Amino acid sequence: MITDNYPTRKENEGRFMLRRESVTYGEAPENYERDGFVIIKDFFSSGSIKQCLAANPSGLATMDPITGTTRSVAGIHNQLPFSDIASDSELVSGIRSILGSDIYIHQSRINYKLGGGSNGWHWHSDFETWHSQDGMPGMNCLTAMIPLTENNECNGSLMVIPGSHKVFYSCKKMPVASAQENFADQKEGVPDNDAMREFFSGSNPVLITCKPGDLVLFDSNLIHGSTQNITLTPRTNLFFVYNSVNNKLQAPFGGGEPRPEEMGARINTKTL
Amino acid sequence: MITDNYPTRKENEGRFMLRRESVTYGEAPENYERDGFVIIKDFFSSGSIKQCLAANPSGLATMDPITGTTRSVAGIHNQLPFSDIASDSELVSGIRSILGSDIYIHQSRINYKLGGGSNGWHWHSDFETWHSQDGMPGMNCLTAMIPLTENNECNGSLMVIPGSHKVFYSCKKMPVASAQENFADQKEGVPDNDAMREFFSGSNPVLITCKPGDLVLFDSNLIHGSTQNITLTPRTNLFFVYNSVNNKLQAPFGGGEPRPEEMGARINTKTL
Repeated sequence: MITDNYPTRKENEGRFMLRRESVTYGEAPENYERDGFVIIKDFFSSGSIKQCLAANPSGLATMDPITGTTRSVAGIHNQLPFSDIASDSELVSGIRSILGSDIYIHQSRINYKLGGGSNGWHWHSDFETWHSQDGMPGMNCLTAMIPLTENNECNGSLMVIPGSHKVFYSCKKMPVASAQENFADQKEGVPDNDAMREFFSGSNPVLITCKPGDLVLFDSNLIHGSTQNITLTPRTNLFFVYNSVNNKLQAPFGGGEPRPEEMGARINTKTL
Repeated sequence: MITDNYPTRKENEGRFMLRRESVTYGEAPENYERDGFVIIKDFFSSGSIKQCLAANPSGLATMDPITGTTRSVAGIHNQLPFSDIASDSELVSGIRSILGSDIYIHQSRINYKLGGGSNGWHWHSDFETWHSQDGMPGMNCLTAMIPLTENNECNGSLMVIPGSHKVFYSCKKMPVASAQENFADQKEGVPDNDAMREFFSGSNPVLITCKPGDLVLFDSNLIHGSTQNITLTPRTNLFFVYNSVNNKLQAPFGGGEPRPEEMGARINTKTL
């Protein structure tokens, strides 16, 4: 049985632990190791991004609890035109270099944040969820966020805490109705205010503004969140999560059944 | 009986109307007339601002419906150290110039947005409320917003729509339990999404980042709003609303009883 290096959602109190592994395993963009994220301007052509924005993906949809519109559709990386972006050779090669191995797509989704009050996302580490609910052993995994619309100062852009990926916050146990419900409005796997105060004492949050064509890479354990979008300018982004083939999913460390394939790939793990 | 130039909350549909009066009546900061707001850096000394942040005001308190902490305390401009700021001679003289007359304080408040999910404010025109609920006849009134903490990209800073003060949006009728409840989480007097789409088609919203010592002036009819504060850096600001003595309150145009003195001054209207 594989060791649980990052126990979480098992105790009644949360606690900080050190990251037990490297952030980068080869050539990486400047400051990625230190900050846990990087913004690369003008990475994609505008044509391919426009195609993605115009496309109507099918997949596992989650609704927005506030506006009642679609919040997210997961499992899109084998559909054109998303597959062209997800398998972009320069993107794949760069991520292989950072993670130091062959990779595959653990999760893919398009997050609509259409505006008019669309819900935000609480501060969280993706890895914490993927570990507990999906059985991802370690952190050798990252997300490519690809804006399809302008992510500006006003429409609920992603906020990150630079350097927060260097520690792991083991969240307290908090029963929720279902993993899917937790995705619509996360309650479990969210550090409490005392933990967040500790994170903020290490670094101020940074708002990631970016535009179609840009690429944002961030570590699986970077603490991030966002506010609601009260404008009417959609903040619509693609998220492709690339995992090292050496970090494939085990049984969920939090127990229970694995989430659907669209949330954590077990079957369709084509090596890139 | 005084004419109602801006009927609102009386019909089942909202509608746009033109502003029926000037924005400025004398010397005004550059672009204030066009944009409806201005940010003046380093207006106040840091000492007086720190005193305000440390003070414990008494007044009409409103609680935050999300965090359960104090959202706002109104009626503070006669208490030290707030009174020193509110009656600052350079501030008063500048506002007298913009409004073109003697002035008095219609409303004063400190808005705490302490963080950890503090509620935002829906898009609205202050004047729309002051007209309907307080009986303010015209728009010859402005707000001085004075940050006591950093208002940054991440902690729910004020967003404004430049130029939106040039039109009046007459809001549809929507019964609410009480004016005070409406202040805690505004439902009535909020333009609907179609109206907001029209406002956004005229101009993109601007996030007003500022720091202690800065001064922000904005027109009573400027559309503004803000998101929740999900950081733990409080966004705490003073708001002093200066009204022209020629624009004193009448019976509320929306009918009903006037709000408390702390929300719209009728008795204590000392001329500045």
